[in-house]
Amino acid sequence: MRKSASNGIVQNGHKLMRQPVCTSKIEQSPCAENTLNPIRRLVDQLVINPNPDKNLLRLSIGDPSVFGNFNPPPQVLKAVSDNLATTCYGYVPAHGLVSTREAIAKYYNTRSSPLTSSDIYVTSGCSDALRIVMDCLGSEKRNILLPRPGFSLYETVAGNRGIPIKFYDLDPENDWEINLNQLDSLIDENTAAILVTNPSNPCGSAFSVQHQLDILAVAEKHGLPIIADEIYKDMVFEGESKSFGELSENVPVLSCGGLAKRWLVPGWRVGWIIVHDRHNRLSEVRGGLTRLCQVIIGSNVLIQGAVPQILETVPQSFYDDTLKRLKNASEIVYSELKDCPQIRPFKPKGAMYMMVQIKIEEFEDITDDMVFVEKLITEQSVFPLPANIFGIPNYVRLVLTVPEDILREACQRIVEFCQHHSVRVPRKKAKLTAS
Amino acid sequence: MRKSASNGIVQNGHKLMRQPVCTSKIEQSPCAENTLNPIRRLVDQLVINPNPDKNLLRLSIGDPSVFGNFNPPPQVLKAVSDNLATTCYGYVPAHGLVSTREAIAKYYNTRSSPLTSSDIYVTSGCSDALRIVMDCLGSEKRNILLPRPGFSLYETVAGNRGIPIKFYDLDPENDWEINLNQLDSLIDENTAAILVTNPSNPCGSAFSVQHQLDILAVAEKHGLPIIADEIYKDMVFEGESKSFGELSENVPVLSCGGLAKRWLVPGWRVGWIIVHDRHNRLSEVRGGLTRLCQVIIGSNVLIQGAVPQILETVPQSFYDDTLKRLKNASEIVYSELKDCPQIRPFKPKGAMYMMVQIKIEEFEDITDDMVFVEKLITEQSVFPLPANIFGIPNYVRLVLTVPEDILREACQRIVEFCQHHSVRVPRKKAKLTAS
Repeated sequence: MRKSASNGIVQNGHKLMRQPVCTSKIEQSPCAENTLNPIRRLVDQLVINPNPDKNLLRLSIGDPSVFGNFNPPPQVLKAVSDNLATTCYGYVPAHGLVSTREAIAKYYNTRSSPLTSSDIYVTSGCSDALRIVMDCLGSEKRNILLPRPGFSLYETVAGNRGIPIKFYDLDPENDWEINLNQLDSLIDENTAAILVTNPSNPCGSAFSVQHQLDILAVAEKHGLPIIADEIYKDMVFEGESKSFGELSENVPVLSCGGLAKRWLVPGWRVGWIIVHDRHNRLSEVRGGLTRLCQVIIGSNVLIQGAVPQILETVPQSFYDDTLKRLKNASEIVYSELKDCPQIRPFKPKGAMYMMVQIKIEEFEDITDDMVFVEKLITEQSVFPLPANIFGIPNYVRLVLTVPEDILREACQRIVEFCQHHSVRVPRKKAKLTAS
Repeated sequence: MRKSASNGIVQNGHKLMRQPVCTSKIEQSPCAENTLNPIRRLVDQLVINPNPDKNLLRLSIGDPSVFGNFNPPPQVLKAVSDNLATTCYGYVPAHGLVSTREAIAKYYNTRSSPLTSSDIYVTSGCSDALRIVMDCLGSEKRNILLPRPGFSLYETVAGNRGIPIKFYDLDPENDWEINLNQLDSLIDENTAAILVTNPSNPCGSAFSVQHQLDILAVAEKHGLPIIADEIYKDMVFEGESKSFGELSENVPVLSCGGLAKRWLVPGWRVGWIIVHDRHNRLSEVRGGLTRLCQVIIGSNVLIQGAVPQILETVPQSFYDDTLKRLKNASEIVYSELKDCPQIRPFKPKGAMYMMVQIKIEEFEDITDDMVFVEKLITEQSVFPLPANIFGIPNYVRLVLTVPEDILREACQRIVEFCQHHSVRVPRKKAKLTAS
């Protein structure tokens, strides 16, 4: 890679003998090479040529701020504005301001799992929280179990650190619950943790309390901690949302969350790790979390400093309204798509997504979800994410934070597209019907 | 670590047979264990018992915001406030907003090294920039050369990733220049990069252009890239501050910077990597940088979105004033300490620090810089950082962003302390003099 060194002695103030310019490439490290983002890998492969006669409807990005219909409440903006007016520019503890950690502990405190500021680690967004927790438990020799379908960042983090991963399946026929026997069978003596996402991206599912208890029982049987991605905590359309931490009697739970989704500011990069550990099994791990936070010196103080005021002042009506509108969006999409014989929508229970199965056998010329999405963009300018990205073939994920009229329009175009490509309707006839 | 698994089959809705509660500790990963912060390791060892009769004067933390005398200019606050008023909540490209990258490219563009937005990677502070660059070039098999004395975060990052490090020395007798022959001799076939800091934390030094060219010549001889920690770029008290990128003809330079020091907002966590690469040797590395940025999805959009306005509106007079006051502070400290025979202050040329040598042989009962600092705190309530933390024994680092009256008071206490512990003055006499 590099030219052999000359024998010239270096002297202050004197240039070395002129060498021919080195033009060989500098190598990236294996860590950089293995830091893969499955979304980018697949989206970069997609041929995206929208129909120039139709406006492109993007149902692909899990960012509620895109369309301007899901904005953070004024209390969030005021809290940051107030904090900007005070002197808040300097370094704070890398794992977060005490006042911020206290506020998060108070907010998520439950009788069954009491929390104090020392149980909280503030991070640069939930992604950073997940990275720190996975780095702290996993290693090249210690695997982590991941959900399939699941959020693609887990693989990015695992690749970055060389952590082996094993996938357990979520069962679409059973409310996307975990196949517990399979989960149990995948655990080996080198397993470091089970990662669970609840409510789920991409499934839009929310586990029953009983299912959460069953998952905890598997972890307890093997003495394993649970990494709970709970960024969508409290975003459940009906009933109560319980965290794994509050349900766990004996299993240590490292819960990752943040402001991104519930407070609708994903770009502000304030997240947190909440440690639930009733039998003090994570004392060493806590030290590791603290040290791992020190590498990038934590989250920005302007926004993390506003967290106590945010948690205190945002009214319940804001959260209720968000959920009501998400539920409404899910009902619109479900009712628009449910009678289309080529696809099968799955009614979500939480988060901000809906999974739609593509019945490949019902299509004349669609071979998988990637082709479905490519053709859907080319013909109808509608862009959902192929769920291949999340590890499950022949589904697409629709984002529900899109305005109602766009959602309806997108659904109608999807139905038209399905009719047009159906095995049941000859191509030409469909074309006539459509015109 | 973990109990052996029972043979119980897991069934939905049914709890497993009750097991005895597992109480064994969960292990942290080697990565977490090896993520060390030398500052914490040493400061935690320090016995810090300030004299209750004297207020504690902290000259230890490199955070200009601590005392309220170095505040960000109003234009910085206005830029963020303006950005808060616009809709800016969502995800942006993980390596930064195009407008932010364009503004940084324009700001640091030079005729000799033209920059475009594609040369810029926005990061969560300069620490994140350093982490990404070191992770992208170094690995367990590829070492990185670090300055000694040097900023301790480099070791934290290297430990986190298992990157072997080799130290080259900065020579206090020669304006803290690099010992180039030693630097040259340390490079082996597994060296991935040379990391340089200019202006220097902790030395307060700033290299001459000729010395920068000499360093580049060593890198060029070996075909190596330079990682330039240039967070203190443009913070030079006299003359011009040149970046390694603009001086380099053939050596690829990855420069790390950010808002922290020059704009006085270290807690806001907006940094950047600037890639200077005139012979396109970093094409693979650029891909790695992009992917590494995706792990934590970059810096917060509220502040990074304000960067273009910040760079455009902050007047030159603000920067000039900061430097004038830092230079003034350095002259005060230098003149207060220069005649004290037990110590030797080194006049800084830039950044915000001054190194002071402790002449151990001149002290009756001070055996090293750690003891010096402990006794100085106990007796005089003055807290500089022992430079052991930065890899050099028997120096202390003083921070210069402290208000003038506190600086003078601290210096007078240091001088009194030195007199009191001098071999030249018998203990009792010194005590009488002081009272």
